[in-house]
Amino acid sequence: MRLAVVGVGAVGASVVELAGEYGHEVVAVADSTGGAVDDSGLYADAVFDRKRTEGTVGDADPESVFDADYDVLVEATPTTLGDAEPGFSHVRRALADDRHVVLANKGPVAERYDELRTLEAESAGTVLFEATVGGAIPVLSTIADLNGQVTAARGILNGTANFILSRMAAEGLGYEHVLAEAQDLGVAEADPTFDVEGTDAALKCVILSNVLYEDSYTLADAEVEGIADLPGSALELAAEDGRTIRLVGEVSPDGVRVGPRLVAENGTLAVSGTLNIVQLETTHAGRLNISGRGAGGPETASAVLADIGRLPDTV
Amino acid sequence: MRLAVVGVGAVGASVVELAGEYGHEVVAVADSTGGAVDDSGLYADAVFDRKRTEGTVGDADPESVFDADYDVLVEATPTTLGDAEPGFSHVRRALADDRHVVLANKGPVAERYDELRTLEAESAGTVLFEATVGGAIPVLSTIADLNGQVTAARGILNGTANFILSRMAAEGLGYEHVLAEAQDLGVAEADPTFDVEGTDAALKCVILSNVLYEDSYTLADAEVEGIADLPGSALELAAEDGRTIRLVGEVSPDGVRVGPRLVAENGTLAVSGTLNIVQLETTHAGRLNISGRGAGGPETASAVLADIGRLPDTV
Repeated sequence: MRLAVVGVGAVGASVVELAGEYGHEVVAVADSTGGAVDDSGLYADAVFDRKRTEGTVGDADPESVFDADYDVLVEATPTTLGDAEPGFSHVRRALADDRHVVLANKGPVAERYDELRTLEAESAGTVLFEATVGGAIPVLSTIADLNGQVTAARGILNGTANFILSRMAAEGLGYEHVLAEAQDLGVAEADPTFDVEGTDAALKCVILSNVLYEDSYTLADAEVEGIADLPGSALELAAEDGRTIRLVGEVSPDGVRVGPRLVAENGTLAVSGTLNIVQLETTHAGRLNISGRGAGGPETASAVLADIGRLPDTV
Repeated sequence: MRLAVVGVGAVGASVVELAGEYGHEVVAVADSTGGAVDDSGLYADAVFDRKRTEGTVGDADPESVFDADYDVLVEATPTTLGDAEPGFSHVRRALADDRHVVLANKGPVAERYDELRTLEAESAGTVLFEATVGGAIPVLSTIADLNGQVTAARGILNGTANFILSRMAAEGLGYEHVLAEAQDLGVAEADPTFDVEGTDAALKCVILSNVLYEDSYTLADAEVEGIADLPGSALELAAEDGRTIRLVGEVSPDGVRVGPRLVAENGTLAVSGTLNIVQLETTHAGRLNISGRGAGGPETASAVLADIGRLPDTV
């Protein structure tokens, strides 16, 4: 496949770097300030060199990528809420041109799912978004594969929050202390709001709900509570009872809920560090648990590249 | 799809029972003593009634199922070693007639993989066998989906052995005592050799190796040690060190090994009871863990039915 990659953060850059290994070719790349197009294929090293030396991937207008001869748009710009722009417009443009779209950006899938499906229905292109839920973990493909048999989902879908809760419980440290440590390690961002307030986990749960029940939920429909106000004493009390606290997302026909929950200390949901886990309840196969790396450039890019492998060959 | 189901044990019976729910129709059924064919579709209840009252699913020759107008052979006879008969002949017959084959029987895939792939290549039919590894857990479809990125696998692939080891560790009881308890509960069979000697887990690992590396391994190529001689004192020693013992199967380019191994007491591999777990090592996505029910009629049948959903529509 010939890829146009928009957004060259950790995930987009890894897609550019690994595409060749998966048998694909990158013919266009854009970040917020510039673009580069070469129908005979771009070299990853040249793209990254220019980004490092000139601060942008290319001199061309970022919009010029849409004029390239590409098969698949990889939308890897940062997730935005509400109108999910500029990601949504990128997706609309590619679908209008009958191209496939693979998203790492959660915004369009969580905030404008109905419109996304409508645009897809009017296009010859297909939309896939495995990378938006659980990073490297094949959650959506497993749900698709189980073909209507998944009835509900539950999981730990934010590695930053899970790292903080794991460390608080293991070391008896307070929230602010562990957050600062996580920021030093690069596990938490300078502004950790998105992760610790539960927003990121809620977006993933909204996407799961939309896929499982053909809902048209948005973030506003989710009941969300974060971990920033959780006192260390709550974790100590839980430990006395053989339990611990995790930021759990729950997706059921009753709705989407994210919040701190008591879980068994050595139970399946109590994954440690930045790991993510998803539990799927099925009609006849019992409960399936899938855990792995929920974030990271190459890990999330591998989900994008798996999606590209699932696309119909031609549009 | 129109199904011919051969073998009506727990798995085959569940396939017959659930097929309609997945949009398929059973047109032929056979057990070792008889067969029933109806091109307009068999009723599950009628099949089971006859099996209960007359001891067989039908008066016809079991071989008559191959003359039915079917799309997919579901091979669910008991796993046999060596020549893997009669399962292998059933598969050969269906492929020679250009029909698809979905196996729950591990024998033909573990013992005659090369021949199976050769017959498939000469046929218009496709062969799938998700149910042979890890019951309800979508192991093989995940490997296929990751498209060459899985480099090695490790797992707990026998629920009976895992139940025995879990109980021995939790209760401080000896092997013979727990085995008798497992037999009372129906978790272990009257002759538990296949499970406790590691044969069943080894067959699954051989299948994984054949799929991952296009090997043509058989059970004879696996290094297998069971749990029957494991003293309770070994579990006590492990517990003093925060560890426990599990029957672990390992699949790597170096070969297939199954045996009792020390694992972290609260680690990912230490699933409890009859659960199974598979760990997949990947090139760029880190380690994926998938756990769930590794046995059971409806659970394993759901893997068979998922395979049927993956088949190309027409042969």
